Amino acid sequence: MAELKDLTKRSENYSQWYNELVVKADLAEQSAVRGCMVIKPYGYAIWEKMQRYLDDMFKATGHVNAYFPLLIPKSFLSREAEHVEGFAKECAVVTHHRLKNSPDGKGVVVDPEARLEEELIIRPTSETIIWNTYKNWIHSYRDLPILCNQWANVMRWEMRTRLFLRTAEFLWQEGHTAHATRQEAEEEAIRMLNVYSDFAEKYMAVPVVKGIKSANERFAGALETYTIEAMMQDGKALQSGTSHFLGQNFAKAFDVQFINKENKTEYVWATSWGVSTRLMGALIMTHSDDNGLVLPPTLAPIQVVIIPIYKNEEQLQKISEKIDPIINELKKMGISVKFDNADNKRPGFKFADYELKGVPVRLAIGCRDLENNTVEVMRRDTLEKQTVTFDGIEQFIQNLLNEIQENIYQKALSLRQSMTREVDTYEEFKVEIEKGGFLLCHWDGTPETEERIKEETKATIRCIPLDGDKTPGKCMVTGKPSAQRVLFARSY
Amino acid sequence: MAELKDLTKRSENYSQWYNELVVKADLAEQSAVRGCMVIKPYGYAIWEKMQRYLDDMFKATGHVNAYFPLLIPKSFLSREAEHVEGFAKECAVVTHHRLKNSPDGKGVVVDPEARLEEELIIRPTSETIIWNTYKNWIHSYRDLPILCNQWANVMRWEMRTRLFLRTAEFLWQEGHTAHATRQEAEEEAIRMLNVYSDFAEKYMAVPVVKGIKSANERFAGALETYTIEAMMQDGKALQSGTSHFLGQNFAKAFDVQFINKENKTEYVWATSWGVSTRLMGALIMTHSDDNGLVLPPTLAPIQVVIIPIYKNEEQLQKISEKIDPIINELKKMGISVKFDNADNKRPGFKFADYELKGVPVRLAIGCRDLENNTVEVMRRDTLEKQTVTFDGIEQFIQNLLNEIQENIYQKALSLRQSMTREVDTYEEFKVEIEKGGFLLCHWDGTPETEERIKEETKATIRCIPLDGDKTPGKCMVTGKPSAQRVLFARSY
Repeated sequence: MAELKDLTKRSENYSQWYNELVVKADLAEQSAVRGCMVIKPYGYAIWEKMQRYLDDMFKATGHVNAYFPLLIPKSFLSREAEHVEGFAKECAVVTHHRLKNSPDGKGVVVDPEARLEEELIIRPTSETIIWNTYKNWIHSYRDLPILCNQWANVMRWEMRTRLFLRTAEFLWQEGHTAHATRQEAEEEAIRMLNVYSDFAEKYMAVPVVKGIKSANERFAGALETYTIEAMMQDGKALQSGTSHFLGQNFAKAFDVQFINKENKTEYVWATSWGVSTRLMGALIMTHSDDNGLVLPPTLAPIQVVIIPIYKNEEQLQKISEKIDPIINELKKMGISVKFDNADNKRPGFKFADYELKGVPVRLAIGCRDLENNTVEVMRRDTLEKQTVTFDGIEQFIQNLLNEIQENIYQKALSLRQSMTREVDTYEEFKVEIEKGGFLLCHWDGTPETEERIKEETKATIRCIPLDGDKTPGKCMVTGKPSAQRVLFARSY
Repeated sequence: MAELKDLTKRSENYSQWYNELVVKADLAEQSAVRGCMVIKPYGYAIWEKMQRYLDDMFKATGHVNAYFPLLIPKSFLSREAEHVEGFAKECAVVTHHRLKNSPDGKGVVVDPEARLEEELIIRPTSETIIWNTYKNWIHSYRDLPILCNQWANVMRWEMRTRLFLRTAEFLWQEGHTAHATRQEAEEEAIRMLNVYSDFAEKYMAVPVVKGIKSANERFAGALETYTIEAMMQDGKALQSGTSHFLGQNFAKAFDVQFINKENKTEYVWATSWGVSTRLMGALIMTHSDDNGLVLPPTLAPIQVVIIPIYKNEEQLQKISEKIDPIINELKKMGISVKFDNADNKRPGFKFADYELKGVPVRLAIGCRDLENNTVEVMRRDTLEKQTVTFDGIEQFIQNLLNEIQENIYQKALSLRQSMTREVDTYEEFKVEIEKGGFLLCHWDGTPETEERIKEETKATIRCIPLDGDKTPGKCMVTGKPSAQRVLFARSY
């Protein structure tokens, strides 16, 4: 069992705090395969809740799920010129399809006779195999739009990995849509950006900035990449979801044409959009503290834990009798409750463990409470305790869960606001960027200036914000004209 | 769009009927990667419903979900001697982790410098990587049981593939549990067998025979394999789900020991169990007919389709006004309804298309119906039409859906019963097996006799049934003693 006191403090080493927390809170761990993680049941339960809400939102916006192959023929990756540069390099390559007994009798070896004619790549993303498939699905404008999503595992052979944030294999969803017009595809890309930002803010309680990526940071093969950017407690940005307007690039690469309403042949317009288990990293790093996880009630696998304090079986019995109807009522209200009456752990250990696991509300109840008709309630976000009466306790808990959800969102938003500054000179920028946070600055729009800033300060343009101040100005580096301030930060 | 008249009749060529139906009903298709399928949205919607119900059943029996790596180090497969023989041979082998631009400037090639030190195998099943992980999770009896399930893709390099029935990549769930005692593990294996048989019979409306596999047919590494066997309409058996009691084999292979309550060190007891997208094949082949799919209402993505018959916008308007409140009421009852008012297809085309897609109930409504306050209802299982009044139509539909669910189960059960015979001599067996169906026969319990029967008749022992007649007898081949009749059939 994890010992709370072992958790590094955020102020000491934020990065180490994160790494330890993911493991100690039983969310995930490294596996025997380099860069690949095991998502443990408690972590997976949070991911399942994310999946369920996202999937409902996708369906509410007209999307359906499908499944495309894990493996992609090597030649597919070369079809779209920019795409191959962006994705085809560091990836897992399947070259053989058989093992055989080792001649020395020890174990198995690759059978050299089972070499594939063409190597297969484990999908790093599925645009190529999906557009190769869509070619057969699309003939006329009547076949459009196609609004498919896929829940899948993907693999990118990352050199430096961190649990949830950057792993060789990760889980995600990838939407791939096909449209008859440019406008429809552009609207779809923005629609899904809004779905992602709604999800982040309402379910994860993570405030995000919506914006457009600069050309340097665009998805390989996209005409426009939209992004939601969140700020972690250390002031670094985490790209949390992207939605791409792909134009006709993949349709051209895979020759996907259709007869439009005017009876003319045209290439199909495309989008793709995805969020991944990286969201787990965003969730953890936005809210958690030195005592462990802080989870938003909407995504917490256990929303309320009830811990009885008792000396003997008889006392436990009395507590159970009092608590059982309350548990039933809470469950009816759709609240997930755990009554932890395990007798092999002390209450103090349980308190620390559920704090570490981020359970939003904890009830502790002893015999004195029974006499007084009260119960001790602790909220995880502020660690505040209060003693409340049992009368109307269910509604009290429901309200408290809502309050916690709202409070952690506001807390994260306040931090972001306090760490977001407008900066007008490059000198000031170099000083401010060391303090962390988001810097809103004028930029001349060139990749060269962006590259120079990145090299000199390790800060990148996170996005050109869609909302907020659109006043033009002058680039802080070159003094050339700037259409609006853009968002700079160091990032994960 | 698929043309109904093109569908081969079952009596002409059952196998071809199946292959065509899967494609024409938009369930799945072959991909550009040999042996790997694309599961299309309509097929995936059925699989999602299966997943949801199964997942609920797993959770109701105390299981949690987790996720383990896609790739398995080659050496892991050799740890369990039988397992490597059964699984390590025909599989996808990852040998490199990078591509580079081809020297001739055309496309990409495998970078020979990016060869992995140890090859990685795409999981054909996950016992090895999971038990290697469990080693770190299990120390004391307090850490047990572990009741994990994983929803995942797996890959087995099959030579001959058929959509859903046998594909190189398929989707499945695999449960992997760890227990402190032999008895607990054995009980778990049987518990999950019962979950599978309940799911097959109640949700899929597919009757199954529960039983034990003979040693020849056992899972590689198991002490006992339990199975559910279904009969397809052509009389062949389809193994639809298996649950394995693994004893301590994997615990020994990966050195997973724990301190038991008596403070002694002991190896952990294990089970594993799985069902896959193969269930889609069982579903299709059990119920469907020469007009297309027949789906059980519980798993049908669309349970009721409503088709308006109209000549002009005004008529459609009137029909919509009548139908809208009914649709709302049905949705409130949890029934999925589609009102197909698309004006680019004729009603006759729609009728055939929804028949092909297996929608359980079809309502057709025209202007005369409005005058008469009636609607034409067709049930897909029997193709019977009746004209019913709108009064109480919602409850009528609910009852009809229940009736269809029950009827297709009973129909499949009757067929199986009529095609299940007791056979007492090997001469008779050779004649009867040509007629298809299930044959209950005495067998001496030896692999040699089983092997001989398989070679001479292509029939295998599907299982030693758990329920039914347990009278001993004499082996139909050797005359040696037999403990009970066992189930023979040819199979998919």
